This record gives sequence, structure tokens and C-alpha cells, in this order.
Amino acid sequence: MRNFRLDLCYDGSRWAGWQKQKNTDNTIQQKLETLLSRMLDQPVELAASGRTDAGVHARRQVCSFHAETELPADIMLTELRKYLPEDIGALALEEAPPRFHARLSCVEKCYVYRIHTGDAPCVFERKYVWAFPAALDLKAMKRAGRALCGTHDFEAFCTARGKKKSTVRTLKSVDFVREGDELRIFFTGDGFLYNMVRILTGTLLEVGSGQRPAEDVPEILASRERARAGFTAPARGLTLWDVRY
Amino acid sequence: MRNFRLDLCYDGSRWAGWQKQKNTDNTIQQKLETLLSRMLDQPVELAASGRTDAGVHARRQVCSFHAETELPADIMLTELRKYLPEDIGALALEEAPPRFHARLSCVEKCYVYRIHTGDAPCVFERKYVWAFPAALDLKAMKRAGRALCGTHDFEAFCTARGKKKSTVRTLKSVDFVREGDELRIFFTGDGFLYNMVRILTGTLLEVGSGQRPAEDVPEILASRERARAGFTAPARGLTLWDVRY
Repeated sequence: MRNFRLDLCYDGSRWAGWQKQKNTDNTIQQKLETLLSRMLDQPVELAASGRTDAGVHARRQVCSFHAETELPADIMLTELRKYLPEDIGALALEEAPPRFHARLSCVEKCYVYRIHTGDAPCVFERKYVWAFPAALDLKAMKRAGRALCGTHDFEAFCTARGKKKSTVRTLKSVDFVREGDELRIFFTGDGFLYNMVRILTGTLLEVGSGQRPAEDVPEILASRERARAGFTAPARGLTLWDVRY
Repeated sequence: MRNFRLDLCYDGSRWAGWQKQKNTDNTIQQKLETLLSRMLDQPVELAASGRTDAGVHARRQVCSFHAETELPADIMLTELRKYLPEDIGALALEEAPPRFHARLSCVEKCYVYRIHTGDAPCVFERKYVWAFPAALDLKAMKRAGRALCGTHDFEAFCTARGKKKSTVRTLKSVDFVREGDELRIFFTGDGFLYNMVRILTGTLLEVGSGQRPAEDVPEILASRERARAGFTAPARGLTLWDVRY
């Protein structure tokens, strides 16, 4: 069995997220497993660096899979590209060391949340940004961002999914980049909980629009109560930016 | 009657072009006239700087219309934005001098054709670029571009539409901008014939990919025969970039 690493990008708009589900075939994982299984004439199971929710995009998502095949990786890549829909792109496909695993080997992930703050319409990028037309206090947002960084229990910043697992994560940095009418917030960390980036973004936007002070952050973290944090920003503005190994 | 200038942008992907048609309501002009007529409670007719074909985009399209109303232009703009679909944006709306006419007053137009030349997929911009994965000889394309500039009869570079009107136009410049895997060709002129930018682009791509020499251009122009020019590049890569008055 050879081990492969596949790097993807996708526009998540019309997909029910990355992960396979019982009640729909419309997931990116399902689509790719079907294509690869047919191409390699064997059942292929993909591991991704992490699941992305319905409507969330990826500039770079990394996955890995095992397969018994003599095909060179570059031929597989060319073949795969022929069958992918136009909203999923294969960036690279290469043979990986035997122990490489897209989720377990991942050491850092970076997400970006894109916010359109202007009045003027944002027609061409509309699927990748969220319109939040407000004057934002960037200084307050940066203070809140600094208070969020570090190793914390982020239970207040995630949607519970039933299973009780550790909700401790290390948020390495929160960076703000302004470009005209757009504000991009980059979140880098060792891992993210369910909806975490979207709730962090919602909270930062409440701070930026003066609905709450940046100084609330330590209390929210300490409370470990979802209800204390801000709203969940919509999926469309969120993109998995990069994954590091 | 007051006269208004309305600046728009649109993603043309799902529209049957700018101009009203008998057999479909799915045109941008029809959509806007319906909205404005309802909003101002009177029949409104729009004049645009020019029609864009089905699938062609506009970063800035300018139109004008007359209406009897007391409403300030900025209120009209705010109202209009509430009802526009997300692939049409109103950039500006202001009262114009009485003799201003979006088509007749126009002195210069600029189109851009975006070509994706790389192997890697172009997922996020896919609706606005055309994939032509080839090594292009930019020097030859620039020579051909220079030969096209000037005042010529461009009959060879347009699709005939029945009516015999003058096919003489002045092409002021053809500029090439490379950005990573993308080549953008900007065409600036006093006006463009039906399909002209797409046929110019197809011809330049034939030159760039070595299928014909740049030195063919004077002959093609002189022939005034559509069959002598290159293919018609697809609508999706074409955007009306700007209109000047």
C-alpha cells in the first residue's frame, strides 16, 4: 500500500461541508472518495486535516489516503483533474511517507474570515466574504484578539457536538489585514473546535462595532459557556487558508 | 423630467446579456427597468454605454434614464440596492446634466479579457477567467496588438448582425498584464463591434500559441472577412472594465 498526500482547494458554497454524512451525498469527501475509488478501482478512504462546515471554503485543504497502485502520482493528478467539478481543484498529489496522516500529522492550521465593511456592493467576491457594513474599531478588535491568543479552554467558543472531548486549544495569532472595504482576520492555531473560528469572528465583530468591550474576553473564556461569547458569523466568509505539517 | 446616471457592476454568468429581448426576461436591462419602474411608479427606460453579451461581466457599466421624481438620488440608490439580486451591484446613482446619454456621450470604453494559462485549477475566479493552458509568446502577441491599434475597418473582427453600419473603430491600446498564472488583456477604444473583443482575443491567442504569425494582422484587417480572423473567445473571460465620458 502506498500513502498519498492530496492538496485541494474548493468553493464550499454548494456543498454540505467536507465530511461524509448519512443523509446526503453532497459532501466534498464523498465526491472525492467516489472519484478516487473509481479511478483506482478499489475503495479509497480520505483523511483530511479537519472537516470544514457546509458553505466554508478552502484555499488549501490537505488530505491523505492509502492505495495499491502502480500509477505515478503526477498521472493520477492529471486524471483526477479531468473529473473534478469546477468548484473543487486539485493543487497537488504526491506520494507521502508511510506514517503521514493529514489529520494526525497536522501541526498548525490557518483560517481567514473575510468581512466586507463598505456600503458599495461586493458582487464578484460575494461568495467568499460576508457583508457587515459597520465602522469597526480595529484597535479594540486587536486588543480582544490578543486576549484570545494563547492556550485556553475554548469551550465558550464552540458549538457542543455531544461527545465530551478536550476543548483546550492553542491560538497562536489573530492578525487583521485591511484592504479597502475589506477586513480579513487570520486565525492561526494548533487546531480549532466546531464553529470556533466563526464564533471568534462574531465576538470580535461585537467588540469592533461597540456592542461589548474587548475586556470581556477573559471572562468569556473563564465562563466556558457558549452563551457568553458572540454570535456565529456565517460560513460564507470563512476559508481554510493553509495547513502546516 | 430629471436625468440620472447609474453606474453598475455585474457578474454576467447567469444572464442573457444586457439588452432586453423578446424571448426572455432574463436580461440585466429588463431586471433593472422593472425595478426602477416599480420604485418610481412610472415606466423607466435605460440607455447603457453599450450592450454586453450573454455571460459577459461588467466592473463598471454606465446607464442613464429620465424620470419625474422628487426623490434625492442617494435615497434612490439606497432603495435600489435593497432589491437588486446579489450578482448586480449599484455603484453610484446621481443626477446628470440634461443632455447626458450613457451611449451617445461615451467617449472611451475599456474591456479586459482574463486568461488563466496555468495547469493548476482556478477555482475561486473560475467565472471570470477562461482557462487556456498554453505557453504564450507574449512578444508576438504584443506585436499583433500594436498592429491592431489605430483607426481601422474592423469588419473582419466582428460577427455580422444584419444591419449594414460602419465597422470603422479606433482601437487606442491593447495592454498585456501578467500576474502569476493569469494574463489580462486590456482593450481600450472609442467603441467596439459585436463580439469584437472576443474575436480580437481569439486572434491574439492564436498568435501567442504559435498557430499564426503576428504579421497576419494587416492582411486580416484588409480582408474585412470574418473567416480570416481568429476564433471567438468565450464570454466568461470578458469584463467591461470602464467607460469614460
